[in-house]
Amino acid sequence: MARDGKDKSKNQGKDDRLKARLPRGFVDRAPGELAAADRMLAAIKATYSLYGFEAVETPLVEYTDALGKFLPDQDRPNEGVFSFQDDDEQWLSLRYDLTAPLARYVSENFDALAKPYRSYRVGWVFRNEKPGPGRFRQFMQFDADTVGAASVAADAEMCMMAADTLDRLGLAGKYVVKVNNRKVLDGVMEAIGLAGEEHAARRLGVLRAIDKLDKVGEDGVRDLLGAGRMDPSGDYTKGAELDAPAIDRVLAFTQAKRASLPETFAALESVVAGSERGMEGVRELAEIASLVEAGGYGEDRIVIDPSVVRGLEYYTGPVFEAELTFPVTNEDGVPVRFGSIGGGGRYDGLVGRFRAEPIPATGFSIGVSRLLTALRLVGSPIVADAEPDGPVVVLVMERDRIADYQRLVAALRKGGIRSELYLGSAGMKAQMKYADRRKSPCVVIQGSDERERGEVQVKDLIEGAKAAAAIATNAEWKAARPAQVSVPVDEMVAVVRGILEMHGVNPSP
Amino acid sequence: MARDGKDKSKNQGKDDRLKARLPRGFVDRAPGELAAADRMLAAIKATYSLYGFEAVETPLVEYTDALGKFLPDQDRPNEGVFSFQDDDEQWLSLRYDLTAPLARYVSENFDALAKPYRSYRVGWVFRNEKPGPGRFRQFMQFDADTVGAASVAADAEMCMMAADTLDRLGLAGKYVVKVNNRKVLDGVMEAIGLAGEEHAARRLGVLRAIDKLDKVGEDGVRDLLGAGRMDPSGDYTKGAELDAPAIDRVLAFTQAKRASLPETFAALESVVAGSERGMEGVRELAEIASLVEAGGYGEDRIVIDPSVVRGLEYYTGPVFEAELTFPVTNEDGVPVRFGSIGGGGRYDGLVGRFRAEPIPATGFSIGVSRLLTALRLVGSPIVADAEPDGPVVVLVMERDRIADYQRLVAALRKGGIRSELYLGSAGMKAQMKYADRRKSPCVVIQGSDERERGEVQVKDLIEGAKAAAAIATNAEWKAARPAQVSVPVDEMVAVVRGILEMHGVNPSP
Repeated sequence: MARDGKDKSKNQGKDDRLKARLPRGFVDRAPGELAAADRMLAAIKATYSLYGFEAVETPLVEYTDALGKFLPDQDRPNEGVFSFQDDDEQWLSLRYDLTAPLARYVSENFDALAKPYRSYRVGWVFRNEKPGPGRFRQFMQFDADTVGAASVAADAEMCMMAADTLDRLGLAGKYVVKVNNRKVLDGVMEAIGLAGEEHAARRLGVLRAIDKLDKVGEDGVRDLLGAGRMDPSGDYTKGAELDAPAIDRVLAFTQAKRASLPETFAALESVVAGSERGMEGVRELAEIASLVEAGGYGEDRIVIDPSVVRGLEYYTGPVFEAELTFPVTNEDGVPVRFGSIGGGGRYDGLVGRFRAEPIPATGFSIGVSRLLTALRLVGSPIVADAEPDGPVVVLVMERDRIADYQRLVAALRKGGIRSELYLGSAGMKAQMKYADRRKSPCVVIQGSDERERGEVQVKDLIEGAKAAAAIATNAEWKAARPAQVSVPVDEMVAVVRGILEMHGVNPSP
Repeated sequence: MARDGKDKSKNQGKDDRLKARLPRGFVDRAPGELAAADRMLAAIKATYSLYGFEAVETPLVEYTDALGKFLPDQDRPNEGVFSFQDDDEQWLSLRYDLTAPLARYVSENFDALAKPYRSYRVGWVFRNEKPGPGRFRQFMQFDADTVGAASVAADAEMCMMAADTLDRLGLAGKYVVKVNNRKVLDGVMEAIGLAGEEHAARRLGVLRAIDKLDKVGEDGVRDLLGAGRMDPSGDYTKGAELDAPAIDRVLAFTQAKRASLPETFAALESVVAGSERGMEGVRELAEIASLVEAGGYGEDRIVIDPSVVRGLEYYTGPVFEAELTFPVTNEDGVPVRFGSIGGGGRYDGLVGRFRAEPIPATGFSIGVSRLLTALRLVGSPIVADAEPDGPVVVLVMERDRIADYQRLVAALRKGGIRSELYLGSAGMKAQMKYADRRKSPCVVIQGSDERERGEVQVKDLIEGAKAAAAIATNAEWKAARPAQVSVPVDEMVAVVRGILEMHGVNPSP
C-alpha cells in the first residue's frame, strides 16, 4: 500500500512517479528458468551438431519486404508484425520467425556456403498480436534447416533429428512426429477444381480450415470448408465455400490414416486419383516412410498422418509436426494431449524469391518455451534442479572493517567457492534472513572476539535448519549453537568446502 | 553476373525479384564467431556467478516512458531509439541499454528480491543511429548490477569483479579500470556556479565536453567548454559557454591525477575546495582506493583517474571505465590504445523514478563485440580455435541406396561422431569438394564393390592433403591411394574414431 492508502499498482497518474510495468505479452525470466532453458538448448544444439548442422545467427531486425507475408492467420500485410520506418523511408520489422531471415541470409551469402547447407539458429521472434494465456508477443524459436537438398532424404533427416532430440530431452515414448505432404493436398485441390493462381485465396482458406482440426473438430472444419463458422465467443469466420462433395473429399484426405502404411497410401491414392502432383506426393511419403523405417524409427516415433497440414502458406512438399502425447489439463479442466511443440516442412520457393534459380529447402522449428514447459511437466532430468545453489555469505559485523571482510570473501572466491560479502546496511538478524533468502548453504561470521583470536565462525545453514526443527526452546538453542564451528582464518576455505561437499552443493555453479 | 550480363547485386527493381540485403547497421554472425562469443560469455558468467551475482533476463521491448531519456549525446526525446505505437496508443521501444530495463524489473519485483540484489544480464540492445565502422544498430551488452547497496564497497566490488573478469579472459597486464566520482565533478560545478536545477543543461554540456577528452584532446575540450568547436568535417558543436577561470578549473579536475594517491587526493581537494559534496566525493574515492588495495589490486589494475566521467547523465557517484591498454592502429593508420570495453557507475536515482523511496544502485556494462574483438587481437586462449571441427561426410555413390548410406551415418552418430550424409545431387568429385569445404576430417565411401564385400572405404582427408602435397603425378596418386583404407562395415566407427583421435579432432563438438 502506498502512502495515500491506495493500492500502489494503480497509482499511475496520481503522482509524478512512473509505473514500473512490463508491456502486455512480454515476460521477464528468473535464474531457475534461464538455467533450465540453457540446459535444454545445449541438449538440442548437441543433437543438431551431431547431425552436422552448424550455428548461424541473423539480427532481430530485417527489411519488411525481405520477411514477406507468411504469418499464419494473417491476411492483411504487416498485421501481426512490429514495424517502423527507417530514416531513409524504408520499412524495418522485427522478425516474426527464423525462416524468412534464413532465406535472406542464404541468398546473400550463397556462394560462400557449402551446399547442401545445414544450419541451426535459436533466437527471439516477435508477433504483434493480442496476447493471451501462453501466447506471448516475444518468444524463442530453435530452427534447423537444410538448404540446397531437393531429396526427401533431407525431410526424413529432419524428422529423425527431431525424434533424436526429443529422446535426448527425456521425452522417449512421449512424442510422435507426424508427416504429411502438401503435394497430396495440392492433388486434392486439383481434384476439387481449385488448381491455378486464381484460386490461391480459396486454397489458403482450405488449408487454414484443416489446420484447425485439433481445435474445432471435424464438424467445425466442415463448417469452415463450407459457408463458415461461428465460434462459441460469437466470432464468425467466413468459410472456403466448397460444395458438399468437395468438402467430403478434403475430409477424406485428412482422415486417410489407416491401421497400416500400405492401407494409408492406398487411401491417399484414391483421394488424389487423377492428379499427377498428388500421386508424386504419395510416392514421396512412401519414400520418407521407407527411409525412417530403415533408420530404425518405428511408427510409434515417426508416422505418416494426413491430418497434419501446417498453417503456413509457403510449404511446398513434406510437412511435419512433433506432438507430445501425454495428457495435460486444459483451461477448461478437460484432459487433452499436450500437443505440438514444433513442426516444419519443405519450402522450395522461399529462398528462390531472392534469386534467379529455385533453391530447395526444408526445416524444422521448435517452440522453446512450450518445450520447456513440457520438460518441466514430465520432470525431465535435463531441467531438474537447474537453479544454481546459493552463494556463501560473509556477514559484516563491524562496518568500519569492511576491508577485512572483503579479504575473507576474496579468499573464498580464490578457492573457487561462490560467495558474497553482505553489502547492505542491516544488522545481524536481517543479514541472516538475507542469507536464508539467498539459499546460502553457510555463512561466515567474524565479530571482534573472533577477529582477536584470528578465527571465523562458519555456520552451516542447511544443518542448522534441520537442528532448529528438533530444538524446542530458545535457551536450548543458545546452549547448543548447532551446526556452527569456530576455525582459524586459514582453515576457513577448507571447512566451507567440506560443508558444501557434505550437502552436495556445487561450489562454483 | 546475372542473365542480363549486369552485376546481380544491382538488379533491384530491374526484375520482380527481391534483393537479399541486411538492413544498415545490422550483422549476421557465423559459426566461428558464435562459438568464440559463447566461450567468452561463459567465462564472464563464471566470474560473476563466483561473486554471487545471479542471472535475470528482461524482454527486448519496454514501454518508452519506462526507458527514460538517458542516451548519451541525445538531447531530443526518442531520437536514437526504435519506437512503435501499440494498438492501445501506448509507445513501445526496443531497449537501448540494460540499465533502464533493470530499474523497471527491480521496481516491479521489489518485494520478491533479496536485497542487496546482485544480478547479471546479457542481451541485445538497439540504437537508432547512423551506423559506421564498428558502430552497429544492434549490439550486445553484458551488465552486472547491485541494487540496494548504498556503500561504496559495492562500487569497489564492481571494479574488482571487472578486473577479475579481464584476467580470466587472458587480458592480465593489458587493462586498467579507471575510477572517478561524479560527486567530485558536482563539487567543481558548485565551485564554478553551475549548481541547481536551472543549470542542468549546462552541466550536461560540461559532462559531454569532458567525455570527449580522448577524442578531441585538451584543446578540443577547452573549445567545447567555451564557445564551441568546429570538427575537421565542418560540423559545429555549441559549447558550454564557461568563462576562462571556470574552464581552467574543470580542466584542472580532469588532470588531477598525480604520481601517488595522496597527491591525487590533495589535487582533487583543492579543485573542489568549498564544496561539501565535492569533498564527500573525494572521501568516497579514498575509501574505494583503500578497499581495492586491501583486496590486492594494485594501481596497475584499478586506478583513481579524474579524467573519466562517462557520458551518461544518470550517474550520481563513483564511475568506472575499463580500458585495454595495448596498441592498435586506428582508421588513419595511427597507433592508439585499444581503449574502453566497458564501464559503469552508481545511479542512485534510476530505480527511484518508479518508487516512493530512493533506491541506491551501481553497475558495470561490457560491450560484448568490442571485447571479443580485443580477445581475438591478443590471441586469447578463451577464443582461440573456437570454431568446431568439421563433420565426417558419408558420400552417396548409388542414389537408389540412400537408406543404406543413412544406416552408415546413423552408426557414426550412435558412436558419438559428428557426421552427415551428403544430401545434394552432385557426383563423386563435387561430393569430395563439399567435404573439403565442410573441413571434414574424413569421408566414408561405399561403392557397389565395397557393398558386396560388406566394406567401406574410409578416406583420411587431413593425411590425404599432406600426401597430395608430396605426390607429383596423377598416376602416382592413383597407384598409392594415400590415406585411404578399406574396412569391414562393423569396424567403420572404430577406424573413423582412430583417425579423429590421431588428428586431435573432437568427435562431438
